[in-house]
Amino acid sequence: MATSGLNMSRRIRRTPYTDRVESVGVRGFSVVNHTLFPKAFAPSAEEDYWHLSEHVQIWDVGCQRQVEIRGRDAARLAQWLTPRDLRSAKPGQCLYVPLIDEQGGMLNDPILLVLGADHFWFSIADSDVLLWAKGFALGAGLDVEVIEPDVWPLAIQGPKAEQLMASVFGERIRRLGFFEFDYFDFEGGSQLIARSGYSKQDGFEIYLNDSKLGSRLWDVIWEAGTPLQITPGCPNLIDRVEAGLLSYGNEMTRSNNPLECGLRKYCCLDGSVDYIGRPALERIDREGVERMIRGVLFDAGRCPPCGTPWPVTTAEGDTAVGQITTAAWSPRFQRNVGLSLIERCAWDVGTPIRVHSADGLVREGELVALPFDSAAR
Amino acid sequence: MATSGLNMSRRIRRTPYTDRVESVGVRGFSVVNHTLFPKAFAPSAEEDYWHLSEHVQIWDVGCQRQVEIRGRDAARLAQWLTPRDLRSAKPGQCLYVPLIDEQGGMLNDPILLVLGADHFWFSIADSDVLLWAKGFALGAGLDVEVIEPDVWPLAIQGPKAEQLMASVFGERIRRLGFFEFDYFDFEGGSQLIARSGYSKQDGFEIYLNDSKLGSRLWDVIWEAGTPLQITPGCPNLIDRVEAGLLSYGNEMTRSNNPLECGLRKYCCLDGSVDYIGRPALERIDREGVERMIRGVLFDAGRCPPCGTPWPVTTAEGDTAVGQITTAAWSPRFQRNVGLSLIERCAWDVGTPIRVHSADGLVREGELVALPFDSAAR
Repeated sequence: MATSGLNMSRRIRRTPYTDRVESVGVRGFSVVNHTLFPKAFAPSAEEDYWHLSEHVQIWDVGCQRQVEIRGRDAARLAQWLTPRDLRSAKPGQCLYVPLIDEQGGMLNDPILLVLGADHFWFSIADSDVLLWAKGFALGAGLDVEVIEPDVWPLAIQGPKAEQLMASVFGERIRRLGFFEFDYFDFEGGSQLIARSGYSKQDGFEIYLNDSKLGSRLWDVIWEAGTPLQITPGCPNLIDRVEAGLLSYGNEMTRSNNPLECGLRKYCCLDGSVDYIGRPALERIDREGVERMIRGVLFDAGRCPPCGTPWPVTTAEGDTAVGQITTAAWSPRFQRNVGLSLIERCAWDVGTPIRVHSADGLVREGELVALPFDSAAR
Repeated sequence: MATSGLNMSRRIRRTPYTDRVESVGVRGFSVVNHTLFPKAFAPSAEEDYWHLSEHVQIWDVGCQRQVEIRGRDAARLAQWLTPRDLRSAKPGQCLYVPLIDEQGGMLNDPILLVLGADHFWFSIADSDVLLWAKGFALGAGLDVEVIEPDVWPLAIQGPKAEQLMASVFGERIRRLGFFEFDYFDFEGGSQLIARSGYSKQDGFEIYLNDSKLGSRLWDVIWEAGTPLQITPGCPNLIDRVEAGLLSYGNEMTRSNNPLECGLRKYCCLDGSVDYIGRPALERIDREGVERMIRGVLFDAGRCPPCGTPWPVTTAEGDTAVGQITTAAWSPRFQRNVGLSLIERCAWDVGTPIRVHSADGLVREGELVALPFDSAAR
């Protein structure tokens, strides 16, 4: 079994797509939100990167569990949970929202789907936001229901995604703007589909609301995608780093605040809305952050996988000014690309640095702005 | 690398013992609380079972993260979190405590360590209790601090555990009673050690409070254990099922209440203490539970691993009256042993049932009381 025994229990949940993912030869799984998350298929990360940027892929992202909030105080709770100003949020919108604790520490960075005035889904990264939201609502006596619905996202990513989705769900889907969602028929039921995804390519996420339809949905898309060279996939590390897409648990944890993670534009700091962690975040803003997320471009041959953080020093000094938490060889830049929070003393774009990778090499490089595509060259 | 790439990121944390676990040949990891959890070493589950019942093993259970609560309202919060009556809890005690939500659904089943009148650790199974406790405390305006400290349990399990622990920590440790803890010196620091563990053998858990000491602690115990035939290990499925030890996420989820999970003795139902979910739990108690946890003894040769739940029917009927969530071949009983919640209509001990295992076989068996050692045979 392709899982290497990882799912030899019910504790790590299968998704409605796991059977199909196994039948197309998944090479291993990780675990996100107590759920299997495909890690790799046969092609190398580099082959997969080029395929993703030219064709279309189908990704089992069922591990992006939904935290559904509805009820009289739902909008109030949604706003408590994020520093992003939700006052102008409209049904049909997806919003990237940092979630922080009372000290301003990152708890998650979900996509918020506005289903209605009193109805929301937080489509979450890897932490039990359900417990956070339920606990807070219960303690504060809010009139809301907080549940995990039977909803399992399937991502269709790549430049041919629109063509594929139009052939399955009709031409109307072409009019869906980035980070918008709408409802489309599938086998007699209505399914929420968003234009979104964890890549820098065009793409869609189908929030399938009936796990029994998982295999059928996969099969229909697979068949329609065959002439378009569809392959099974998962978030591609090279594409993700180049795009500057952060990963909760990697680039940021509870020890980090959203301002140093480059998420200032998602934080209301003028006092006009109230949310958990507002005083702490305003204080951090007044005092200034100590570090800032940066891209790192560096050399000395292909770097190994970054399993534990690698120290980053300045070109002159021995003291770490940061640590690379994710890195990959970029075939586009022909250099390694990495993500690191960098101390204030060294964080200027262009600063020459050294990366001390786990293979013992000291690699010369420099800091760049994110995303990498915006970088000089 | 033995991880099969599972830990190719910082999102799934290593423990202070992961280096050592890899160097002694771990065969794979699972993930608990965003942390690597060794799954298997070279011996078969059966060889490991006999070794565990005769000698001593060292287990990396660093994934049992601590949720630390301290402050003026700490005792109040601890009691809010569990239906177990904590009024007579004393420092130095370990208590097995179900955690439930407002509907009575299981959220976790940690060990509570009473460190002081206003100071507690919940040593948790696989869900982010930290977020639940923080969220509730924040919403309710409680004066507490809720953190995850730098504490990493290491378990020493098996009948020779006492002898081994005495040789490392001194003779005083022999006087530690079951589910008691005390403090012992190690390398100049004081470490909390409890007589406890996730097996039916004697054993201890060392709550190492300094991750930098992890390798040193492992090495000292390994060396002292060599004459006692110490091996690396992890919770043994056969031993766990025979003991009737439940696993959160397997035997029980948020859909289950503690009464049907056989945890009534840990639930105060006389109204004398208040806790989250009390009205719901009292209602369930009044109305009677719909199902109850049972052991299942069944035949037709060794069963395969139970990766997805297997339907249990009565010997006559076709309708499922339960589902086996964990199963193993027991060399002691020379039959398969499994755990299942069973519907009221069929839950009597001794009821003949059929297990429909994933290999397509229909296996005859019967229901028994837990733990299996108490069962008729």
